[in-house]
Amino acid sequence: MMQESSVALAMDWGGTWCRIAVVSRDGRMLWQSRVRNAAGAEKEQLLEGAQDLIQQARDWCGSGRPIFGLGVAAAGPVESDTGTLREPPNLPALDGVSLKSDWESRLGFPVRVGNDANLAALGEFAYGAGLEARQFRAESNSLVYITVSTGIGGGVIDRGKLLLGGRGLAGEVGHMVIDMRSEAPVCQCGNRGCLEALASGTAIAKVAREKSAEPGEKDGILGELEPGLITAERVLDAAGEGDSLAWSILEDVIDSLSVGMTNLLHLYNPDVVVMGGGVTFGLVRMGLLPSIYGQMQQRAMTDGHRNIQLIPSRLGDAPGMLGAASLVWNGG
Amino acid sequence: MMQESSVALAMDWGGTWCRIAVVSRDGRMLWQSRVRNAAGAEKEQLLEGAQDLIQQARDWCGSGRPIFGLGVAAAGPVESDTGTLREPPNLPALDGVSLKSDWESRLGFPVRVGNDANLAALGEFAYGAGLEARQFRAESNSLVYITVSTGIGGGVIDRGKLLLGGRGLAGEVGHMVIDMRSEAPVCQCGNRGCLEALASGTAIAKVAREKSAEPGEKDGILGELEPGLITAERVLDAAGEGDSLAWSILEDVIDSLSVGMTNLLHLYNPDVVVMGGGVTFGLVRMGLLPSIYGQMQQRAMTDGHRNIQLIPSRLGDAPGMLGAASLVWNGG
Repeated sequence: MMQESSVALAMDWGGTWCRIAVVSRDGRMLWQSRVRNAAGAEKEQLLEGAQDLIQQARDWCGSGRPIFGLGVAAAGPVESDTGTLREPPNLPALDGVSLKSDWESRLGFPVRVGNDANLAALGEFAYGAGLEARQFRAESNSLVYITVSTGIGGGVIDRGKLLLGGRGLAGEVGHMVIDMRSEAPVCQCGNRGCLEALASGTAIAKVAREKSAEPGEKDGILGELEPGLITAERVLDAAGEGDSLAWSILEDVIDSLSVGMTNLLHLYNPDVVVMGGGVTFGLVRMGLLPSIYGQMQQRAMTDGHRNIQLIPSRLGDAPGMLGAASLVWNGG
Repeated sequence: MMQESSVALAMDWGGTWCRIAVVSRDGRMLWQSRVRNAAGAEKEQLLEGAQDLIQQARDWCGSGRPIFGLGVAAAGPVESDTGTLREPPNLPALDGVSLKSDWESRLGFPVRVGNDANLAALGEFAYGAGLEARQFRAESNSLVYITVSTGIGGGVIDRGKLLLGGRGLAGEVGHMVIDMRSEAPVCQCGNRGCLEALASGTAIAKVAREKSAEPGEKDGILGELEPGLITAERVLDAAGEGDSLAWSILEDVIDSLSVGMTNLLHLYNPDVVVMGGGVTFGLVRMGLLPSIYGQMQQRAMTDGHRNIQLIPSRLGDAPGMLGAASLVWNGG
C-alpha cells in the first residue's frame, strides 16, 4: 500500500504561526512553508489559511510523492479520537473544531491531530533524542519531554505509546505544584508554586525584575537595566557574564527543575528525559544540564528510577511537527 | 480454549503475608488461603511457602476448574516482561527472583507478575471503583489509584492499559515532592516534602506525637496520651471526637492530599481517581472525601482535568490480588 516515495504532511499550528512540512518516513523535512495567523481572525479565516498551506504542500508533492496522511500538532487541548480542539488558549477561534472530520473527507487521506507538547514528545522519541538514546541503550522506549520556555509543558511516551489520559490532556508537567506554601509565586493557571511559576522564562523574568529593583542590586548587570527590559534571555546572558544576582536566580531555577523532574522520574519512570525550549537552550549553553542531572541522581528513590539519560531536544524548533509526522507514519 | 468454568489463581505477596485466591472471570473470589512469611527466611524457604499455597489452590480446583493462569502482585519493583523482582524493600530475599520463569515451566500455565500498587489500580479498574465509574460514564478508561496507608503508593491505568514506565516503576505517587523547602519533613526515601512525608499514616502519627508534646496541648485527647501510643488511627479517632489538635493535623493532611492529587490530574488526566488504604477509610468515615474533591475542583486547570469521579476503593484489602487476576484474564 505505502510506496517508497510516499510522504507525510505535518502541520504545527501555534498561537502565532501555522507551519506545514512534507516529511519522509525517516523523519527528514523535504519542504516547508508557514503563514502567520491573521490577527483577531475568525474560525473560517484561520481554517482557510491552513487549508491554503495544505494545498501548497499538495502542489509541491505533485504526483511523484503520494501523500500518506496529514498530522497536525495544535497548541492546546485536543480530543485525540475525534481530533477536536478544546478551548485552545492561544487559538480560541478554533474551539470545538474537528480538523479530522473537517479535513479527512475533503483531502482523501487520513488526518490525525494531537496536542503540540504531546507530539513534541513523540517527535523526539521517533526522530530526535529518543533515537540517540536507543543507540546507547536499545530498550529506551519510555520518554518524558519537558519544554522550558515562556511556559512549561511536556509529553510522555510509555513503552513506545503516547500517554494521553482520559481527554488527551496528560503531561501538563508545568502545572505540578512543588511549593505548596500559601506565599509561593502565583501561576497563570491560578494556583501557587507550580513548576511553571518557579522555573519558566516568565518566572525568571519576573523574579529578576523584582530582585533587581531591591537596594544593593543596583550595581549588577541586571540592576542597571530598566526593569521593563529584563527578559529571561537577558538573565541567562547576565549569568554568563558573571552577574551574581542572575546566578542566584538560575540556581533557584535549577533546584526547582531538579525537584520537578525527579518527581517525573517517580511518576512516569522514563528511560530518557528530553529537555527543550528557550530556557533549556540557555542552560545548555552555560553547561548547566549536568547540575540538574546530578541533583536528579541524588534525589531519585531507586536505581530503577535513577538510571536515565538526560538529553537536550535534538529537533530544534520543530519537535511537534516531526511528532505529527510520526503520528501519520507510526500512530500514537 | 478458555472454558466457562476456568479460573485464575491470584497471589498477593506482601512483606508479612503471602495470600492466594481462586478467582472467576468476573472477579469473584471462590477460595482463599494465606501463609505468614517465615521470619528472616531465605529465598528457598519463602518460595516453598508460596509454592505450597499454589499447590493447595490446585488441589482445591481439582479437575473441575481448569486453571487459566497465575497472577502475582508483589510488594516491590517488578520487571514486568520477565516477572523479576528488583530489590523489594519488604521481601529482600526475593531480589532477582524471576517468578515467571521459575514457575511457568513447573506449573504448565502462564504466570504474570506485577507490582502490588500497580495491580491494585488494575484490580480497581476491572472489578472495583472503575466498574462503578463506567456505570456512570461508559468511557471512564483512565484511572489513578492512590493508597494512603503506612506509606503512600499508587498505580495508573491509561486508556485501559497499565502505565508501567521503562522498568515497571511508574506511579510512585507518594514520592512526589510538593513542599520543596529545605525545612520540609524528611521522607523515608531520603528527600524532603514528599506527599508520603506529609499525608501518610506514618506522617500523621509523627506530627501528632510532636505537636501533642507542646505546651498548651496537654488538655486535648492526644495530649493526654503517651506519645509512643499515638498512631494515625488514634488521631483519626480523636478528630472524630472533636479534638482540635487532631482536626488541625487532618486539615493539613487534606490540603497536602488535595495538592498532590490535583498534580496527578494534570500529569495523568484520569477519568477516575480511586483512594484506598487505612487513612483513606478513616477520612471516608469522617465524611472528608468531599473536602478533597472540592479542593481538587478548585485547583484543576481546565474542565478536561477537573471532570473526574473520586471514589473510595471498593475492593477492601484485596485490590492487588484482584488486579493479579485481571492480569491473567485481560493482560496488563
